[in-house]
Amino acid sequence: MAHINGTNGTNSNKKVKSTSELEEFDAIFPVLVENLTQNGLKDSEISDAITWFKEVLEYNVPFGKKNRGISVVTSYCQLVQDPTEENLTRARVLGWCVELLQAFFLVADDIMDSSITRRGQPCWYKLNKVGTIAINDSFYLESAIYVLLKKYCRDQPYYVHLMELFHETTLQTVIGQCLDLITSTPSDGVDFTNYTLDRHAAIVKWKTAFYSFYLPVAIAMYMAGIDDSEAHTNAKRILLQMGHFFQVQDDYLDCYGAPEVIGKIGTDIQDNKCGWLVIQALNRVTPEQRQILEENYARDNEEKIEKVKKLYRDLNLSQVYQDYEEKSYQELMNLIEKSSGNLPKQMFIAFAMKIYKRKK
Amino acid sequence: MAHINGTNGTNSNKKVKSTSELEEFDAIFPVLVENLTQNGLKDSEISDAITWFKEVLEYNVPFGKKNRGISVVTSYCQLVQDPTEENLTRARVLGWCVELLQAFFLVADDIMDSSITRRGQPCWYKLNKVGTIAINDSFYLESAIYVLLKKYCRDQPYYVHLMELFHETTLQTVIGQCLDLITSTPSDGVDFTNYTLDRHAAIVKWKTAFYSFYLPVAIAMYMAGIDDSEAHTNAKRILLQMGHFFQVQDDYLDCYGAPEVIGKIGTDIQDNKCGWLVIQALNRVTPEQRQILEENYARDNEEKIEKVKKLYRDLNLSQVYQDYEEKSYQELMNLIEKSSGNLPKQMFIAFAMKIYKRKK
Repeated sequence: MAHINGTNGTNSNKKVKSTSELEEFDAIFPVLVENLTQNGLKDSEISDAITWFKEVLEYNVPFGKKNRGISVVTSYCQLVQDPTEENLTRARVLGWCVELLQAFFLVADDIMDSSITRRGQPCWYKLNKVGTIAINDSFYLESAIYVLLKKYCRDQPYYVHLMELFHETTLQTVIGQCLDLITSTPSDGVDFTNYTLDRHAAIVKWKTAFYSFYLPVAIAMYMAGIDDSEAHTNAKRILLQMGHFFQVQDDYLDCYGAPEVIGKIGTDIQDNKCGWLVIQALNRVTPEQRQILEENYARDNEEKIEKVKKLYRDLNLSQVYQDYEEKSYQELMNLIEKSSGNLPKQMFIAFAMKIYKRKK
Repeated sequence: MAHINGTNGTNSNKKVKSTSELEEFDAIFPVLVENLTQNGLKDSEISDAITWFKEVLEYNVPFGKKNRGISVVTSYCQLVQDPTEENLTRARVLGWCVELLQAFFLVADDIMDSSITRRGQPCWYKLNKVGTIAINDSFYLESAIYVLLKKYCRDQPYYVHLMELFHETTLQTVIGQCLDLITSTPSDGVDFTNYTLDRHAAIVKWKTAFYSFYLPVAIAMYMAGIDDSEAHTNAKRILLQMGHFFQVQDDYLDCYGAPEVIGKIGTDIQDNKCGWLVIQALNRVTPEQRQILEENYARDNEEKIEKVKKLYRDLNLSQVYQDYEEKSYQELMNLIEKSSGNLPKQMFIAFAMKIYKRKK
């Protein structure tokens, strides 16, 4: 994700306004880097490695939109009246843990997807001195989560819940990434057999929605002492549906978003991605148009990529997307109305407002 | 590690003989694979991914020597009189968690080191259908640890200790791998500046000794209710020294071991590894011999590799190693005598016996 465009008060509440919260959130990142590295930097045995990891943290963690991380704080403030400063700090640290989880996946995904840029700069593995060392660096980013959890939450009653939640969410995301990779990597040539809305929905749910939508709110719920499975099931239902819409939008922006705005150059077409746009195209093509797709999708060649984009325009997929966005917004609001249980509806609505109509 | 050659009774004890323990240990692996995959295989949304991961588990986890995993069981039996069947099973499961951690690292290390074979078969990432997907598969292997920990130990008083121990050990190994990679990857050409015994000792301690030697015994100690920091500090001191010897031996076997016996083709010379042999060579060369090293080390070329090996022979490094092995064995026995505290010396001696004089 890149910067949200909805930090305009629609998602403010008594405790936290997004603009200043982003500043507060950003302000503790250097403190966390210091926590993670200060002892190791003093140990001559390993200081070279820790110097390296400091750069890994500073290059890969702080330049996203930070929607996911900040959602921990805003959700917590929706659940708890007058939170203490100590707990606000804890929520921010846990928000950064979500950002670390995301960085762990992105550093590795960029290698697996052969991506070039990320968040407006070269992907970490593309730097000359890095290469496949980035694999080990992704492990470091994951390890940092548990160092911070232990440092800030070890004495809290929800410490075990949080460790288990991060473990479970990691596994869910790994399952989703596997689904995505084995769907996009046929034994030979282009094979659209598995490119269905069902497969797309499964990839989205597992690869993105659990960690981007359920995880931040679930952390806030555990912090607030909410650990009953009914409340978590309700929140999960709503947040996974929100995550589904988010990824459809992300697929749309990969092709239709301006690179200088979304902070990356979309590669879904040449990467043979099972994305929402190609599935919509497959559901609408004539036999002749299907042949165009088969001959031009999944090729790293500017002319062929342009032919796919032209086909998308001919099929008016931009309008198909606009209609989908409108309809999905209504359905989400109905679901929030129906399924929030004892949880504050505003917590979900504020989250949704950050996502709908974003340009990046 | 490959098969141990010391399963001959020197490391037997009241409860467990190694040969039959290896059979018992192997026997529960299919049960764990079943536990890890049965629910996912029934879920049509993700069954393709789980089918893939089943193969990841079966290809990458069970074919090592399993010294590390079995050490959990043998150590536990040294600490607890008449263990229950339930706890013996738990110790075996936790032994497999150590093997999973190892598999997680090896699958990824093989990509970073451009290795060809592992445990007598092609490295996982070298299979046509796999490639960089192996990165995500390594994440899966790590996630499986925490699924098993939760399933088998959630109600045990040491559950949090074990989660923290695995987190900490993972980070230590990641630090060691980073040290190794940044020492072996100079900006251009061969650079022996950092190839010192001190740097070698640091890489070994962090990359190998914590997870291979301290981890299995520490798990057994926590299972036995031993969680005081003095006992863990004592065990760590002894086991890290044992791990140091083990890696020196591993470096030696990489060059002098027979590939059909050690189960892999050594690549330390062409990979520019900061290994014990090249450091010993650097400490003994004439200026002319040093030039031979600089011109032939770190090149993926059979003739150049042979020139390095000839230099090692000229310097009689094989004898240097034999002398080192003898001396380090005596020092280790002295350390065990001095530092075991309340822990049974036999637990450490049995572990040492598996390692000294191994051929693979």
